[in-house]
Amino acid sequence: MMVKHRHLLDFTGWTADELLALFDTTDVMAQVLQRTIKKVPALQGFTVSTLFFESSTRTRLSFERAARAQSADVISFAAGGSSLAKGESLKDTLRTIDAMQVDLYVVRHAAAGVPYQLARWTDAAIVNAGDGRRAHPTQALLDAYTFRTSFPGFDGFAGKKLAIIGDILHSRVARSNLELWTRLGATVALCGPATLLPRELEQPRLSLHHRLEPTLEGAQAVMALRLQQERMTSGLLPSLAEYRARYQLTEAVMALAHPNAIVMHPGPMNRDVEISSSLADSPRSVIERQVANGVPVRMAVLYTLLVGKK
Amino acid sequence: MMVKHRHLLDFTGWTADELLALFDTTDVMAQVLQRTIKKVPALQGFTVSTLFFESSTRTRLSFERAARAQSADVISFAAGGSSLAKGESLKDTLRTIDAMQVDLYVVRHAAAGVPYQLARWTDAAIVNAGDGRRAHPTQALLDAYTFRTSFPGFDGFAGKKLAIIGDILHSRVARSNLELWTRLGATVALCGPATLLPRELEQPRLSLHHRLEPTLEGAQAVMALRLQQERMTSGLLPSLAEYRARYQLTEAVMALAHPNAIVMHPGPMNRDVEISSSLADSPRSVIERQVANGVPVRMAVLYTLLVGKK
Amino acid sequence: MMVKHRHLLDFTGWTADELLALFDTTDVMAQVLQRTIKKVPALQGFTVSTLFFESSTRTRLSFERAARAQSADVISFAAGGSSLAKGESLKDTLRTIDAMQVDLYVVRHAAAGVPYQLARWTDAAIVNAGDGRRAHPTQALLDAYTFRTSFPGFDGFAGKKLAIIGDILHSRVARSNLELWTRLGATVALCGPATLLPRELEQPRLSLHHRLEPTLEGAQAVMALRLQQERMTSGLLPSLAEYRARYQLTEAVMALAHPNAIVMHPGPMNRDVEISSSLADSPRSVIERQVANGVPVRMAVLYTLLVGKK
Repeated sequence: MMVKHRHLLDFTGWTADELLALFDTTDVMAQVLQRTIKKVPALQGFTVSTLFFESSTRTRLSFERAARAQSADVISFAAGGSSLAKGESLKDTLRTIDAMQVDLYVVRHAAAGVPYQLARWTDAAIVNAGDGRRAHPTQALLDAYTFRTSFPGFDGFAGKKLAIIGDILHSRVARSNLELWTRLGATVALCGPATLLPRELEQPRLSLHHRLEPTLEGAQAVMALRLQQERMTSGLLPSLAEYRARYQLTEAVMALAHPNAIVMHPGPMNRDVEISSSLADSPRSVIERQVANGVPVRMAVLYTLLVGKK
Repeated sequence: MMVKHRHLLDFTGWTADELLALFDTTDVMAQVLQRTIKKVPALQGFTVSTLFFESSTRTRLSFERAARAQSADVISFAAGGSSLAKGESLKDTLRTIDAMQVDLYVVRHAAAGVPYQLARWTDAAIVNAGDGRRAHPTQALLDAYTFRTSFPGFDGFAGKKLAIIGDILHSRVARSNLELWTRLGATVALCGPATLLPRELEQPRLSLHHRLEPTLEGAQAVMALRLQQERMTSGLLPSLAEYRARYQLTEAVMALAHPNAIVMHPGPMNRDVEISSSLADSPRSVIERQVANGVPVRMAVLYTLLVGKK
Repeated sequence: MMVKHRHLLDFTGWTADELLALFDTTDVMAQVLQRTIKKVPALQGFTVSTLFFESSTRTRLSFERAARAQSADVISFAAGGSSLAKGESLKDTLRTIDAMQVDLYVVRHAAAGVPYQLARWTDAAIVNAGDGRRAHPTQALLDAYTFRTSFPGFDGFAGKKLAIIGDILHSRVARSNLELWTRLGATVALCGPATLLPRELEQPRLSLHHRLEPTLEGAQAVMALRLQQERMTSGLLPSLAEYRARYQLTEAVMALAHPNAIVMHPGPMNRDVEISSSLADSPRSVIERQVANGVPVRMAVLYTLLVGKK
């Protein structure tokens, strides 16, 4: 299965077969990371640059580890120290960095669309590591991969249901998971207060809810989103006590879901806000495995874009 | 052609033959960077440390890329997080870093002379990556190298003319280019408002001007310098409008230069201040190639100082 | 001599033989660093992460150099840019980083005990690079190693005496040296103003003093500690002039010690505060060698914990 894509900006144009091929490659990478020597020479001589205009240590380190585990060189570019502060245009900044002979950029930016713009300006591959509220495809991939590997004899995404609860409005994680899981044949239920649930997302295989009961019904995967405390003061949210009462994921609430349902969270967690601490540490929780799958999933993405398509 | 120098602080003592040998090595490095695997083992086991007391992400990354492309190890030392803030002397700081067994330091400092001082305190090689207004030799090398590779059948620097326009007073780029191009046999014309044109630079093969016409006449290479906006308020400059009218490089103004003249800028640009945006993007402009030549030129410098002299 | 330890948190449980084996390994590493190619493949495929919640460029770079000189991959994690600032718990942060498949963490934290806590949460090895006032074992190792290599035909630590002068109260360096040297069979004398000399340290082979004379008598190793200027205003210290008069190490004062005594300082120095500048630069001073021994000692620690115990 050859993947024909030059970039991973979102999942537009990616077929279910290509996405499943990414998961198969992830299986191989996960095995590499089980060895004593967790390193392969697959990307020797390639240079991967992280280009983070918005700070995120964990995502950046996860990509850098994924690159180094395949023997690629890594350039860390944080926008804080750059000439952008001197008034240089984004385009001129990228041209300058591009002169470092980078093969692939991992881009994060607070504004939606920046990675797409960069893809037009460089010959290098681009991986979107989060742009505004728009997309965060590798997070969605690691979520779906975690789901796939949580059930022995997993028989595919068709007929499965993912429930996502919380601040859908501001969440690129929700958008990318919606795009990915529906492409793979699953259905998705999104749930949150009216102010945080954008109606324009409506599409086939998606349902929108304000209450947990219909959201969780039949769901095999249940994901709580981080509640950004800074939204609380903006009038977008009810009181914290009310939010907890209506939307907090707890062991009791999980009785509404499929008996085998797993619990996910993209992190960082507010324990006992959007998710109870005991549920986060319970056997249903695959949160640690989500994090652990970050490196092999990103290894598979880097490998596929740089080498695997040839 | 063996180069006998231990450091590259400025071009004092470098012969034209040694400088041309650096360009020949740069040709080889540029070819390496055209390959799919842009990496050679030339500096394996060597450690290069960037030591930037003044922030410059692009220059630092360019040197680090040049080191890694030759398989050297890299240590990034930014002065902000260091014990210098605790009142330790520069000498004690360098001694401490020196204990890391560094083979070559790339040093940038806001004060002229610091790289020269460091060269007296360590056995390692030193490359000056910019010290105050004094020198920035690798920028001058990449400018001259870009010129040399812009004309098929290039027949040498003798008889060629470089024009530099702008804030000469504060520019280490102007000083290093003046030193380099005159050593190579070219003439140099410097142009700017009286307050920004230091008379003490006078020397053979140099002319100083306040008007563009005599500066550009016969010039095959024309370089605009970045106008530091912070100088504007200091009384050193006329109004921005007046500066643009008298000194901005435009396609119209370039008619005064040699018909084949190229346009250069050391970056980062203020578009439509010291250079018109359309000229910067025109076929005359080699600005992107300047940036692209940064890595191979610095590869050649590192290689020559660490290995090539043996 | 196999070392059975998984971590280096402090010296609890380390036998004198195990510590001397570390010094023997350090001898080998120091020879590696004398070669032109200062690199061995001993830790290829291993990942070492520095995890500094308290900033210390020199210690961090020393560990990173020690890792790279053995071909390990390095992840630099500085707490400033992390999710800890978003209110995530220390445990969740470590779990996240742990997903990067790190083999060994080098941890520094302003609070005593954090590296011990982390050791309970991860399968990776932990090296304590300084926790509050509690311990800084690799500094003590390099101090003792420097002592051992300063005397030709060194016949062991038994019967030797180390004197440490200054702010004992806040010094993890003093505590770790006390623990290490007494384990190796030496005696230790600690000296400082009453407010900075904690009586609870009392133990066999230790003497506590307020005056230099009994402290230095017979000492073969004399160490001045950095005087934290910020303590001066807190009422813990006499005036700076009085401190200098009573506790500054000078060439004159050193006449009170053993005739061959060496002078040490863990750095960064306040010249002419806790130590006279001329003594720091005198032949008695081994301060530069202390710094130089930082990399080989840390190479030995990393190697021993990751590979040597097998």
